[in-house]
Order: sequence, then structure tokens, then C-alpha cells
Amino acid sequence: MANVKLAIVYYSSTGGNYQMAQWAEKAAKDVGAETKLVQVPELAPEEAIASNPLWKKHYEATKDVPEATSGDIEWADAIIFSAPTRFGTLPAQMKNFIDMQGGLWGAGKTINKVVSGMTSAQNPHGGQEATLLSLYTSMMHWGAIIAAPGYSDDSIFASGGNPYGASAAVQNGEIVEDIKGAVEHQARRTIDVAGRVVAGS
Amino acid sequence: MANVKLAIVYYSSTGGNYQMAQWAEKAAKDVGAETKLVQVPELAPEEAIASNPLWKKHYEATKDVPEATSGDIEWADAIIFSAPTRFGTLPAQMKNFIDMQGGLWGAGKTINKVVSGMTSAQNPHGGQEATLLSLYTSMMHWGAIIAAPGYSDDSIFASGGNPYGASAAVQNGEIVEDIKGAVEHQARRTIDVAGRVVAGS
Amino acid sequence: MANVKLAIVYYSSTGGNYQMAQWAEKAAKDVGAETKLVQVPELAPEEAIASNPLWKKHYEATKDVPEATSGDIEWADAIIFSAPTRFGTLPAQMKNFIDMQGGLWGAGKTINKVVSGMTSAQNPHGGQEATLLSLYTSMMHWGAIIAAPGYSDDSIFASGGNPYGASAAVQNGEIVEDIKGAVEHQARRTIDVAGRVVAGS
Amino acid sequence: MANVKLAIVYYSSTGGNYQMAQWAEKAAKDVGAETKLVQVPELAPEEAIASNPLWKKHYEATKDVPEATSGDIEWADAIIFSAPTRFGTLPAQMKNFIDMQGGLWGAGKTINKVVSGMTSAQNPHGGQEATLLSLYTSMMHWGAIIAAPGYSDDSIFASGGNPYGASAAVQNGEIVEDIKGAVEHQARRTIDVAGRVVAGS
Repeated sequence: MANVKLAIVYYSSTGGNYQMAQWAEKAAKDVGAETKLVQVPELAPEEAIASNPLWKKHYEATKDVPEATSGDIEWADAIIFSAPTRFGTLPAQMKNFIDMQGGLWGAGKTINKVVSGMTSAQNPHGGQEATLLSLYTSMMHWGAIIAAPGYSDDSIFASGGNPYGASAAVQNGEIVEDIKGAVEHQARRTIDVAGRVVAGS
Repeated sequence: MANVKLAIVYYSSTGGNYQMAQWAEKAAKDVGAETKLVQVPELAPEEAIASNPLWKKHYEATKDVPEATSGDIEWADAIIFSAPTRFGTLPAQMKNFIDMQGGLWGAGKTINKVVSGMTSAQNPHGGQEATLLSLYTSMMHWGAIIAAPGYSDDSIFASGGNPYGASAAVQNGEIVEDIKGAVEHQARRTIDVAGRVVAGS
Repeated sequence: MANVKLAIVYYSSTGGNYQMAQWAEKAAKDVGAETKLVQVPELAPEEAIASNPLWKKHYEATKDVPEATSGDIEWADAIIFSAPTRFGTLPAQMKNFIDMQGGLWGAGKTINKVVSGMTSAQNPHGGQEATLLSLYTSMMHWGAIIAAPGYSDDSIFASGGNPYGASAAVQNGEIVEDIKGAVEHQARRTIDVAGRVVAGS
Repeated sequence: MANVKLAIVYYSSTGGNYQMAQWAEKAAKDVGAETKLVQVPELAPEEAIASNPLWKKHYEATKDVPEATSGDIEWADAIIFSAPTRFGTLPAQMKNFIDMQGGLWGAGKTINKVVSGMTSAQNPHGGQEATLLSLYTSMMHWGAIIAAPGYSDDSIFASGGNPYGASAAVQNGEIVEDIKGAVEHQARRTIDVAGRVVAGS
């Protein structure tokens, strides 16, 4: 298999999606991928963050995680996006990062990136499906190749059976579903598809 | 009919959606609604704006349009959102404003707002449908009542037949479709539905 | 409140959505609505039905439930659709019924119907969100007014927190989530909104 | 490149999507793909077809086009679906065919099919985006790899710029937009991606 470069681009306020991003990175490294784990810039003012102790704690703890750049997107063969829902679509923080790639897009450099997404919400049906579908809509504008997991592994059923991507219910910053296996499978599947796409270029 | 309070919340970089918002406001006033026309805060840095003369010109020209606040959402019986597509969903600027209404949402104050949306894109099929559907997904989280126009007036067919809301192709800051009638109809329809919802409270 | 005419249009293969439809009807009657509970025609061949004992049993048990007609849609002020997911969108049986209302649609008779939807899937994240959003897309073409529940009642959180409509995980024909309260609330909310829309006509 | 097997699965009532399917097949053959062009079974009763002369004419003219089967899906490395909108989602005819692949799906035989879609509507914004997004939602349940065209070729801009797939406005059975180039590009792109996926298996 071709050596695959995977960017894991996440936004997390209380840590759930950061945990998922880390699981995905580990699984991708284990199958030989080169990885970058990067966070999108925060948009919320400091006082908003400070008003929520879990958010504040996570924000401080991850200050050293590099910020995602256009260079990371250009570099990557595959991208896994991970972000919680905000009213059924991506948080503005993640959308802002995506919106800012207009330059890359205009230069045709987003075409054929292999993409999948992960998400979380407080409620079990609180946007876990809709948020991922919204991500994929934007990715189609990019000309990306979408490799949602479907029901391609038993771990998906065990984790709640979201075919659009691994998803968690996160309460008080804790993931309350058994989704580690589904995240790892999704990472491996993304690498597998990207490896084929790259090898055939 | 009950007196309806309508907030028109828009984001516009080169003026298309501001024009649509103004048409909607005029039509709403003409049927007796009380209106506020407000813009969501910009997220782009000054240098990004300065790099695009049309954006810069519109930005300067509309500096005095009030910024949308949570108070405007709480005040409104009906809301018309107007924003261009960014890769098939709302621009981060608009999404950020929506995301920031978590406090109102948690207090149950977004329930039963009557909502419709308008949008634009450069290409005729460049996200005009998907962007509005994405808006409505978020509005369902709010418990809003969605009054998309469907095919409830001949003006809709004349403007390209978008049942989810009035939409324009905007090129070089100019609307290149005949959508004024559809915008006006949509404003009146939103007021009509909101008037009934308010009267029945 | 105006007397509201509610059509509950369902498709069910093993009984989950029929149960939900019955709960909705009872709740609607309890607030004074006039109701029709009708099923859409089956498209599957007899041998497919016979191959699944639960499907066969339910099919036989509900043979006397009236079939939905265009007349029911024309009659109704409000419509609750209930159908299981099939790969994240409506089953062909329900979509076929909706497609067949082109005549009513062309005559403007679908405009301002107040609509909400309910659904089910085998997996917790198996299309419960996407299926309802797909229904609402079609309903916007109808010019319907969409009254998804959002988070307008505590029963919604208790049932899994699906803001687009009540949804169940159904396994072996049995609903495995506590959604009765959410269904009843959704029925009452649909009647409430429809009552206002009708009164204001 | 690996030899790619492409199934073009279409539904057409007055001929637009059949024309698009033929263009796609020709372009795929020209790059060496093995193809099957198949139509999904009609669900409408004979009298409905007979009531529309254009539909009747097309129905009679294409009686010899083979019907799509599960075997075709199993055989294919890549699938292009083409169907007109019906209220913003797939027509029941196409959805019924997709729903009936539950057996293949359960056996894991829909995984990694490379898929793209084409569509049409009467109005320029009459569901051309929403219908394709609805198709892709179902395809994610299949575990398919989605290769929407994005803006990967100039022909896409020339045809109205639909990033989700080639789309036409069809009036009186005639395609009224210049989409042939976009259809051909989409076919070649689907073959390209599928060739890579197959070669890497």
C-alpha cells in the first residue's frame, strides 16, 4: 500500500472529539500512515470559555496541539474531521476553517482528498447523523472522495450503528458509548481507501 | 392579524444577500409587520476583506447596519435568515451567530419562532438548495416552525423555482436572476404564518 | 382552538410505526382533534412478506386499517407521517404515496398543511435523523409548514432527544426506547400549531 | 488501470435521465469500462403512464432496456444512478430498487462500490441538489465510496455548477441545459476512482 498522509482535523470544547481524534491517530499510525493531529482555531471569547469549567480545563490542556492550516489540507491524502454537533451541523469553529480553504479549493487542491467524519452530541439523537451529512455536503464541493464507514465492520453495530461516521454521546466531557473500536475501524478504512486512491494516481 | 415582529438576520460579503434582506423588509413593512434588519458579526480578518474590492466596498457601506443580538431573536415572532452558501452550508459567520444562541435555546425561547431562509451562490446549482436545508436542520433544533415557500406563488417559478427559499446566483456582487418577487412573496408568507401562530398563543 | 383534522399516515412492516401512529392518534383525540389513521399501500410482493414471520403477522393483523388516499391529504389540516428508515430515507412505500400526490400539489392543495414526522430504525443511529430530514425536504416542496418538535418538552430528552421527530429503535418488532411520551407530545404540538394556522385562515 | 465494471441504473419517465445515462455509458466505454445500462422497474399503473403522452412514448420506446437486478449491483465496481427528482428526493421507483438490495447489503456486498448520481427537475432549483444528497445518504448506508464530481472540471461550471452530480432542467422531455460535457466528465471520474479502488483490492 502507498504511504498515506492523514490529517485529523478536530474541534473539541470539553474533550470528547479530541479523544476520538487521538484514537483515530493511533489506529492510523498502527497501519503505517503518516499523521498530523491538528485543531481548528477557537472563535469563542475567553470569557465564554472561562464560564464553563470543563471547557476551560480542556482548552488549557490542549493549548499545545498545533492549529490546522491550509498547508495541512494540501499535504494530506486523507482527512478525518471530528467535531461535536451545534444544532445539527458543524460548529462555527470547524465551518470557519473549512470556509477559509477557498484558496486551495480554487486551485483544485482539495480534489480527491479521501474524507470521513466523526462527531458527538449530548443527546443520543442530538444531531449525530445530521452533522456528518452536513460535513459531507461541504466535502462534495471540495471534490473529495467520501468514505463513510457504512456497516463495514461489526464495531459499527456495537457503537450505535451510525453509518455516516463514528459518533458519541458526550456528557460532562465523557464519552458514554463504546465507540473506540468504531473509531479505529474508521481510521483504518479511511487509510485503506486513501491508499488505493494515492497508488492509482 | 396580530402585529408580527420580524427579524431579518443576514450575512453578506458583496451585497447580494443585503439586497434580498432589504426587499424582504420592505415587503414585510408593507403588510404591517414591525421589522429589524440586522447583520451578523464578521469573522474574517480585515486583510481578507481588503483583498477583495467588492467585499471591502460592501463592508464599508454597511458598517452602520446594526449587529444581530440574542435580544433580536428573543424579540422576534418570525425570522428570515439570508446568507450566501459556503460549500453548501451556511457561512461560518452566520453559523457562529446561530451557535451563540445556546442560552436562549436552553431557556426555551427559540421555540415556535416562524422561520424561513434565503441564499445565494455563484453557480446556479452551487448550494442554493443545500444551504437552506442546512439552515432548517438547525432551526428544527431550535423548535422553530419552518415556513419554506414551496410553490405557493407564481413568483417562485419565475425566480428559478427553489421551494426551500428565495435564492440567487450572485456574480460580481450582482444578482443575476429575477428574484425580487419571490423574496417579497416569501416575506409576506412568513408574516402570514407568524401572524397566525402569534394570534393563537 | 379551531377543530383540527389530523391525518396520521404510516407505513409499518413489523408494527413499530403502527404503534407510534396509534399513540399519536390517541393523544390527538384527547385534545379534541378529528383523526384518520391510514396506512400507505404495500409495494412488496406477498412472498417477501411471507418470508418474514413478524412482517407477515403484522401485515395480516392490520389488513383492515384503511389505505391512505389523496382525499385524506386534502381533508387534513395536519399530517403526521410515521415510517421506518430504509437506508436513511423514507421507504419506497411511503415515498410512492407522497409522489402520487402530484395532482393535489399541482392544484395548490398541499400548501400550509402542518406536518411532522416519526420514524424508527434497528440501530440507535441507523437513520433516525436522516429519514425525518428527508421527509421534511419533500414537505417543503409541498409548501407545508413544518412543526418538528425540537426540544420543546422534557419527554423529548427522555426519549433520546431527536429534535426532528419521535424516533425509536425497533428490534424484532418491539420498540426498545421509552418514546411514548415524546410521541404524545409531538401529536399535541402538531395539533396546537395546526389549530393556530387554521384559525388564522 | 484495472478494468472497471460500471452499472448505470436509471429511472426516466420522459427521457431526460435516459439520455444522460446513455451519454455516461458512451463516455465510460470510451475509457475502457465494461458497462451495463439498466432501468429500475416502473411502479406507476398503466393508466397513469397512458395519461401523459411523453411518458407513454418513452415507456414504449425503452421497453427493451433490461431491468436492473441485484446481480447488476453485485457485479459492478462502480454505479452511476440517474433519476429525476420527486419532491426533492428520489422517485419511489428508484428508492424501491435501492430498498430491495437489503439482501446484498446484509451480505456485505454493497461495501466499497464507487457511486455517483445524476438527476433532473423541471425548475432550475427544483430539487437538483437535494435529490443527489438524498441518494448519497442511502449510499453511505451501503458503505459505498462516494465520488461526487465537485468542481473537478470546467464542464461542471458550464453545466450550472452542481457539485453533487450532473443535473438538468428537463421540460417537455427535453434537457434545456448544456450538460453533456459534465455527464461525460462525471462518468470518466467515476471510472477513474473505481479503477483505483479495484486495483488496490
